[in-house]
Amino acid sequence: MKVTVSRKAHFNAAHRLHNPLWDEARNAQEFGKCNNAEYHGHNYELIVSVRGEVDPETGYVIDMKVLKDLIKTKIEDRFDHKNLNTQTSEFANLNPTAENIAVVIYDLLRADIDAKFDLKITLYETPRNYVEYEG
Amino acid sequence: MKVTVSRKAHFNAAHRLHNPLWDEARNAQEFGKCNNAEYHGHNYELIVSVRGEVDPETGYVIDMKVLKDLIKTKIEDRFDHKNLNTQTSEFANLNPTAENIAVVIYDLLRADIDAKFDLKITLYETPRNYVEYEG
Amino acid sequence: MKVTVSRKAHFNAAHRLHNPLWDEARNAQEFGKCNNAEYHGHNYELIVSVRGEVDPETGYVIDMKVLKDLIKTKIEDRFDHKNLNTQTSEFANLNPTAENIAVVIYDLLRADIDAKFDLKITLYETPRNYVEYEG
Amino acid sequence: MKVTVSRKAHFNAAHRLHNPLWDEARNAQEFGKCNNAEYHGHNYELIVSVRGEVDPETGYVIDMKVLKDLIKTKIEDRFDHKNLNTQTSEFANLNPTAENIAVVIYDLLRADIDAKFDLKITLYETPRNYVEYEG
Amino acid sequence: MKVTVSRKAHFNAAHRLHNPLWDEARNAQEFGKCNNAEYHGHNYELIVSVRGEVDPETGYVIDMKVLKDLIKTKIEDRFDHKNLNTQTSEFANLNPTAENIAVVIYDLLRADIDAKFDLKITLYETPRNYVEYEG
Amino acid sequence: MKVTVSRKAHFNAAHRLHNPLWDEARNAQEFGKCNNAEYHGHNYELIVSVRGEVDPETGYVIDMKVLKDLIKTKIEDRFDHKNLNTQTSEFANLNPTAENIAVVIYDLLRADIDAKFDLKITLYETPRNYVEYEG
Repeated sequence: MKVTVSRKAHFNAAHRLHNPLWDEARNAQEFGKCNNAEYHGHNYELIVSVRGEVDPETGYVIDMKVLKDLIKTKIEDRFDHKNLNTQTSEFANLNPTAENIAVVIYDLLRADIDAKFDLKITLYETPRNYVEYEG
Repeated sequence: MKVTVSRKAHFNAAHRLHNPLWDEARNAQEFGKCNNAEYHGHNYELIVSVRGEVDPETGYVIDMKVLKDLIKTKIEDRFDHKNLNTQTSEFANLNPTAENIAVVIYDLLRADIDAKFDLKITLYETPRNYVEYEG
Repeated sequence: MKVTVSRKAHFNAAHRLHNPLWDEARNAQEFGKCNNAEYHGHNYELIVSVRGEVDPETGYVIDMKVLKDLIKTKIEDRFDHKNLNTQTSEFANLNPTAENIAVVIYDLLRADIDAKFDLKITLYETPRNYVEYEG
Repeated sequence: MKVTVSRKAHFNAAHRLHNPLWDEARNAQEFGKCNNAEYHGHNYELIVSVRGEVDPETGYVIDMKVLKDLIKTKIEDRFDHKNLNTQTSEFANLNPTAENIAVVIYDLLRADIDAKFDLKITLYETPRNYVEYEG
Repeated sequence: MKVTVSRKAHFNAAHRLHNPLWDEARNAQEFGKCNNAEYHGHNYELIVSVRGEVDPETGYVIDMKVLKDLIKTKIEDRFDHKNLNTQTSEFANLNPTAENIAVVIYDLLRADIDAKFDLKITLYETPRNYVEYEG
Repeated sequence: MKVTVSRKAHFNAAHRLHNPLWDEARNAQEFGKCNNAEYHGHNYELIVSVRGEVDPETGYVIDMKVLKDLIKTKIEDRFDHKNLNTQTSEFANLNPTAENIAVVIYDLLRADIDAKFDLKITLYETPRNYVEYEG
C-alpha cells in the first residue's frame, strides 16, 4: 500500500544562464535574456514528493513536519535570497537551469531520505515553466 | 489510446490524529498540534483520476457528470462537514491522516468504477501538503 | 503617496455555527451542515492589508517581516489547529462565522498596528467563500 | 539523467459535443448541456511536457522558448478563438471532447518533437476537469 | 460593523464581439479574433460580493447558501453552456464584452438582493483578464 | 456606469534592497536577506486596473489588447530579465521595494492612459506578498 506524500516549499534567488566554454555571441544566442550578465531572478516553487508504504502505527508515509524541516535546512537555507551563480558551491561550475537545479535538489535531499522511499522533485521556475526529476 | 480524466471535488471536515495504543505523551510527540483532543479541520481538495480507453462513440473515457455524481454520493455526502473521527465508520478505528483518507476514498470509489479503468486519488489536506494513491 | 501592502497567512481550525439562544431545530434550519455538533473544519487563508505612506528611508510602508511575525504571534499561534468554539476565549460566546472571525482578527491586530495605518482583513473560509473587513 | 520539462499555454474556443450517427434524443441524453447546437466555450489551459536527457552543454532538456513557439504555431494559432466543430479540420469529423482534443494536440506536436523525447499532454477544460495523454 | 462577503461561481459560454452598426472591416479591426462569426468561448469565473452589517443573531451578513442558490437560479441557469449572442435575451442587442456581462449580472442580482446591501460583481473572462462593477 | 478592467502581466527580475545613506550594519538589520549584495530575484506578477465609463459603441472601457501591448512596451520590455538596481534608470537611485516598483509602474503607465480613467497597480513580489497603488 504505497502512497506518495508531497510538500510545497519556496525560495527566491538570482541567477543567469551561461556556458563559460562558449563565447559571448553563442551564449546570447542560446540563452537570450536569461544570459544577462547582471542576473535576473525567480520565485522558485518546489514540491518534494516521497513515495513509500504507509506506516500502520502512524498512518504516515513520512512525517510532513520532518520533511518540511529537512527542506528548510537542506534547500531553503542554502538557496533562498542567494545568487545561485556566485554564492552557492553547487552552481559555481554548473549552469543553474531549472533542470540542473532540480537534479541538485534531488541529490541534496536523497542523502537524508531513507533508501526505501522513492523521491521526486518538481520545480516551478515561473508559473508557466516547471521541471520534474525522479532520479 | 489510453487517456486519464480527472475531476476535482471538495469537502470540509474536522479530525485529529491519534493512536489509541499510545499514551498521551507519545501521541503528543508524534502528532504535535494535529493530536489536539478538541479537533481541528481542513478544506480537503480531492482529485479523482480515471485512466482508460477513449470510447469512439462518445469521445469519453468516462462521463465526467457520472464521475462527479459518484464522488458526491460516495465521498462528499459521507465526509463533508463531518468529524472524521467520531462521525464516520471508516475512521472509527483508523487514524485519519491524509494517507489513510486517500486510501479509504480509493477503496470506496473502486467498487463503483469498472475494473477496466485505473483509478488514482490525489488529496490536498492544505495548499502545501498533498498525497496520491493508485491502489 | 499611500500604498497598501498585503501579507498572506494560513491557519487550520475546527468550528461549528450555533446560536445558544435558539433551539436545536432553528439552529439546524439556519446553519444546516455547519451546525454539526461534532464540528467540521477549514483551511483558513488570511490576507492582512496595511495602507499608509511609503517611508522614504526604507521604501517600505511597513516591514513585511514584522507584519508576518505579528500575524504569527497574534493570530496563527492563537487559532491554528484549534477548535474555535471550545479552545479560544474569542469565540466562547461569539458564533465563529467567517464574518465574526474576520472582525476578531481585525481587532486583535489593530491594537499592534500604528493608528496612522489603515487595516483590512480578508479571510477565505473555502476557496469559494471569503469575507473582507476594514473596521 | 532524464528530466521532464513542462510549459503552460492557453487558448479559448467554442465547441459542442455531438455524435452525427445518433438521433437528437440520444445526443441530448449522452451529452446534456454540452450538446447545445449553438455551442458553448472554454478557456483551455494546456500543459506540454517533454521528457529526455539533460544536454550537458546547455543544461536544457529542450529550449523552453523553442517549445513555447512550437505550441504557439502548431496549437494556439490553430485553435485559439475558433469554433472547433466548424472551423478546424481536426474536429470536422471528430467529437471535440477534452480527451479527443488532447490526443489531437499530442499528434500535432509529436511530429515536431524529436523521437528521443517522451511527450505528454495535459488539458484543463475547466478548473475542475482535465485530461492527460502520453501517446 | 460592515463586512463584505463574497461567493465564487462559474459558467461556460460561447460568444462573439460584434457591433451590427459597423461594417465587417471595422468589426474585424476593433474586435480582432473576438469578432469570429463562428464564436469562441470562455470559462467565466464570477465573484458576487455583498456588503452589509453583520446580523448579531446569525453572525452572517447574508446566508452564503442563499447567495449561492440565487447565483445558480439567476445567472448560472441562464448563461451556463449557452451561446450568449443567440440564446440569451440580455445579449440579443448588447455586445457581450466582459464589461457588459458584468453589468447585466449586477442588474439581474440587484433585484433580489435587499437594498440595504451593496453589491459588487467581479468577472474573470480568462485567468489574465477580469472586470469589476459596483453599480 | 463605471467598470474596472484588469489585465495580468509578468516579469522576472533581480534586485537587492539597500539604502546607500546607511552603513552596512544598518542595511543588514533593516533589510535582512533582501540586502544580499549579490542580489536575489522574483517572478513579479503585475495587475493593471483601469476604471472608466463603458463605451456604448464597443462595450469596452479600454481595449484589453491595447492595454496588454502598453504593459509590454512600457513595463515588461523595461524590467523583464533585468537587474533592477544596476540596469534600470528608475532604480539607480531608488530602493526597489515592491512599494517603490508599484509607484514607478504607475507613473510609467499614467502618462499613456487617458486622464479620464482611474489607474491602479497591484504587484505580487511573491505569492504571499503584494502591494497596491492608486496614485
